[in-house]
Amino acid sequence: MNNVRFLELIGEELQRVEQRMREPDPDRHEAVQDAMMHLLHSGGKRMRPVVVLLVCKLLAADCERAVSLAAAVEMLHTATLVHDDIIDGSLVRRGNPTLNATWSPGATILTGDYLFARAADLAAQTDSVPVMRLFAKALMTICNGELQQMFNSDQRLVDRSDYYRRIYAKTGSLFVLAAEASGALARVDGQRRLDLRSYGKELGIAFQIVDDLLDFVGDEARVGKPLGSDLAQGLVTLPTICFLEAYPDDRRVLDVLDGRRSPQHISVALNAVRDSEAVGRARDEARQHAALAQAAMLRLPDNEFRQSLLDLADYVVQREL
Amino acid sequence: MNNVRFLELIGEELQRVEQRMREPDPDRHEAVQDAMMHLLHSGGKRMRPVVVLLVCKLLAADCERAVSLAAAVEMLHTATLVHDDIIDGSLVRRGNPTLNATWSPGATILTGDYLFARAADLAAQTDSVPVMRLFAKALMTICNGELQQMFNSDQRLVDRSDYYRRIYAKTGSLFVLAAEASGALARVDGQRRLDLRSYGKELGIAFQIVDDLLDFVGDEARVGKPLGSDLAQGLVTLPTICFLEAYPDDRRVLDVLDGRRSPQHISVALNAVRDSEAVGRARDEARQHAALAQAAMLRLPDNEFRQSLLDLADYVVQREL
Repeated sequence: MNNVRFLELIGEELQRVEQRMREPDPDRHEAVQDAMMHLLHSGGKRMRPVVVLLVCKLLAADCERAVSLAAAVEMLHTATLVHDDIIDGSLVRRGNPTLNATWSPGATILTGDYLFARAADLAAQTDSVPVMRLFAKALMTICNGELQQMFNSDQRLVDRSDYYRRIYAKTGSLFVLAAEASGALARVDGQRRLDLRSYGKELGIAFQIVDDLLDFVGDEARVGKPLGSDLAQGLVTLPTICFLEAYPDDRRVLDVLDGRRSPQHISVALNAVRDSEAVGRARDEARQHAALAQAAMLRLPDNEFRQSLLDLADYVVQREL
Repeated sequence: MNNVRFLELIGEELQRVEQRMREPDPDRHEAVQDAMMHLLHSGGKRMRPVVVLLVCKLLAADCERAVSLAAAVEMLHTATLVHDDIIDGSLVRRGNPTLNATWSPGATILTGDYLFARAADLAAQTDSVPVMRLFAKALMTICNGELQQMFNSDQRLVDRSDYYRRIYAKTGSLFVLAAEASGALARVDGQRRLDLRSYGKELGIAFQIVDDLLDFVGDEARVGKPLGSDLAQGLVTLPTICFLEAYPDDRRVLDVLDGRRSPQHISVALNAVRDSEAVGRARDEARQHAALAQAAMLRLPDNEFRQSLLDLADYVVQREL
């Protein structure tokens, strides 16, 4: 997130979030300790901690608690990735081998569970019951979303509202947690809490749409995984939906959805979507959600932190990794 | 737990714990809902909720919060069992097929995660930050214990202190949570909190030792899994440790520890331990821990709930399932 002014504003707190996430636990096995350091080092963008810290600063919440909350949200995110990777059988994330690529399923599952526990412990360090409740609800939403997707995977997911439900559960919910729990720490209620929820939700949705379109047009080396990974898994995201809305009978893409997923089929479908206007349309939709996030944020008090949160929404749609 | 007086004392609250655990969640997929009901129906002994409710009553904690805490602890226990079964590849628990026996690993992992989230949500309903912290710590202890066991599984675990560390992490920690978090709800501090910790720890250890010896001498139909399951998995528990202390060179048991785990080898080893005084010794050790639990409990105020908690420690060592 270069060229973005907020790093100056919260650089010190972000450092403390990193330290907090790395705090030792004497009961932790050395191998788990190494795995955790590896997971935390592997280049996450720390978007959720940035949201927490900026919203907390905007509303003058207690800084120590803000650091705990930011660390909790990022740790929860990390825990869900560990279980996602084992469930999807992913061997690479952000250009690095996943935990399940080298460890047994059992050790990977338990390490994910341990990270959930650490996340809950960090959340409890906020000393806020409302934060704990939001934390638990976010995890329930994430799990329910993935379970819905899993049990409905025999349906062809080319449905727009289904896609939005899915990315809300997967990504929106954690951004909502980041923004709303920060509001809870600042004892903000009523309409302001709703505005924070909207900001988190729309920002998270915009972020995920861009993630999904980078799977078509990103720079493989920067994204850290092969392009077309979603299609190869049979996962229909917004660019594909936009493509099929324009060309409902195009066999190049329909073949992949029908299960023909050889590298050749994936490559043909990928190029079909990429050469169409579908990716541009998807980025426009991301831009609309970023604008909704900004509209909600503009109802909050005006200061330099609010400006950074507005900038963040622009960054999210412009980013290339 | 028939013939035990406390069911009269807390029968109504136990019912409410069951209801609380079954409360609907509109986002939950039908299949997950069915699986949860199945898991909650399958005959757990509800030992941890009993401890929570009796300690809360003993110390006059708020009843509504006590019910939330009891439901949270049992839900956390259930979540850990779901992940344990997938890790161990267990197909039967308490005479019923496990979730992983019929579901994919992914759906099983996510359902376990969802139960963790539900447990955290129930814990947050106690409105107590100290409870939340104890809750997170307990889950960390459980995961660390299992990870230690997993990473050290190449060592032959015939070490008594190692066994005790393991069963503390696996079972003691949740009984500590049940007792100590109840004390936190009642705003009890200092020595009384320590006494509650001791009670939970010693009771949990006694409970687990008896669980382990029932794997040698229990009634298969009542225990709900084949005898010798631990040996068959290469898991050394207290009866085996007592046996090897008396007969360190007995090939019948050493063969199994060396990896010869055919049904014939298991059966021979099982009979060797069962026909020795080792099981009786293990039960004596359980009795000692139950007595330590009672000694700690006797330092708490005297009323009928305390008497039930004393009786519970007797029940735990006498039980046959």
